[in-house]
Amino acid sequence: MKFYDCTTAPSPRRVRIFLAEKGITVPTVQVDLRNGEQFTPAFRAVNPDGTVPVLEFDDGSRITDAIGICRYFEDTQPQPPLMGVDARDKALVTEKQRQAERDGFYAVMEAFRNHTRAFKTKALPGAFDYEQIPALAERGRQRVANFFTTANAGLADSEFVAGARYTIADITMLVTIDFAGWIKMTIPEHCTHLRRWYDAVSARPSAKA
Amino acid sequence: MKFYDCTTAPSPRRVRIFLAEKGITVPTVQVDLRNGEQFTPAFRAVNPDGTVPVLEFDDGSRITDAIGICRYFEDTQPQPPLMGVDARDKALVTEKQRQAERDGFYAVMEAFRNHTRAFKTKALPGAFDYEQIPALAERGRQRVANFFTTANAGLADSEFVAGARYTIADITMLVTIDFAGWIKMTIPEHCTHLRRWYDAVSARPSAKA
Repeated sequence: MKFYDCTTAPSPRRVRIFLAEKGITVPTVQVDLRNGEQFTPAFRAVNPDGTVPVLEFDDGSRITDAIGICRYFEDTQPQPPLMGVDARDKALVTEKQRQAERDGFYAVMEAFRNHTRAFKTKALPGAFDYEQIPALAERGRQRVANFFTTANAGLADSEFVAGARYTIADITMLVTIDFAGWIKMTIPEHCTHLRRWYDAVSARPSAKA
Repeated sequence: MKFYDCTTAPSPRRVRIFLAEKGITVPTVQVDLRNGEQFTPAFRAVNPDGTVPVLEFDDGSRITDAIGICRYFEDTQPQPPLMGVDARDKALVTEKQRQAERDGFYAVMEAFRNHTRAFKTKALPGAFDYEQIPALAERGRQRVANFFTTANAGLADSEFVAGARYTIADITMLVTIDFAGWIKMTIPEHCTHLRRWYDAVSARPSAKA
């Protein structure tokens, strides 16, 4: 088994934290995103989308999606559970993870990729080129501001993002908030619940992954 | 248990097809999206995001995400499995469902909502208003065209989207392609594998859901 990673990138960090929480280590290959290694023919043969993370099995088949990779390890090593403990909890964790990703992670990405010079023709990850849209960089920032407010409200009466247990929804939210630092947006002063939660999850050893 | 639905909308259709494949029926309430019922205080109390589908349990708690709802029914009624049969298959189905959603479903939504007059300040679903961005409507159409090509290639050697079994990844792809009709985009002539697959999954009784 082989894990294609890039230690500076937010998407593979979601998997790294997940693995750290479960105490799993996987042989890892670093992909140099800064110097465009993801666009080389060699890496395109691994993942035509040119993205990390990728998990490669010994027979050569691969999973090229962060949540898909986490899904695999949740099944092969269920403890501690990070995707819910029964049917209703699994549904809730799924919902909360997807909300954090859609309204938070993708919003930061929208602001970042539509603004940063290096992504001029790469406003979306994947195999195809898309030009930056300046109005989208601005909309991304509005969405992140709204995300902070909503996330804060959700944590007012809840220890973690999906209830009383630390889950993959917390991982997505944590990575999103650190990613927001790339566009110079940080948790606003008034978001005291979000701040309390952020300090707690950031203090877990897995946050260093 | 209660299912908040809108028979004309693509997002809840994903759940309806999923339930039809499993032979599950749930008491259903129709939400009149065309006349703005989703923005009424009564429905905002059900789901602050103002979106369907929503699954409400008898204790009043709710799941407000299509895939979260499917996750619940996969666990409570595992047969037939629609989210994978073992660890690697579950990972693959997760990946393929998410690719179809991200590169297909969201692309159609981007093109549709940034163009259609009724969505002038509702370019994204959810609690917050976002103005339309005309360049985004155009980008959405480019993404859908690229999605058709990629989806076609993926089905060249595969009966279904995630291999030899019908799964939730097929449901997302089917709903996406029918949703693309709303922006007047249909499967291109050269996409013969996608057409073969589309005709097969559309002929299943669940496609009428």
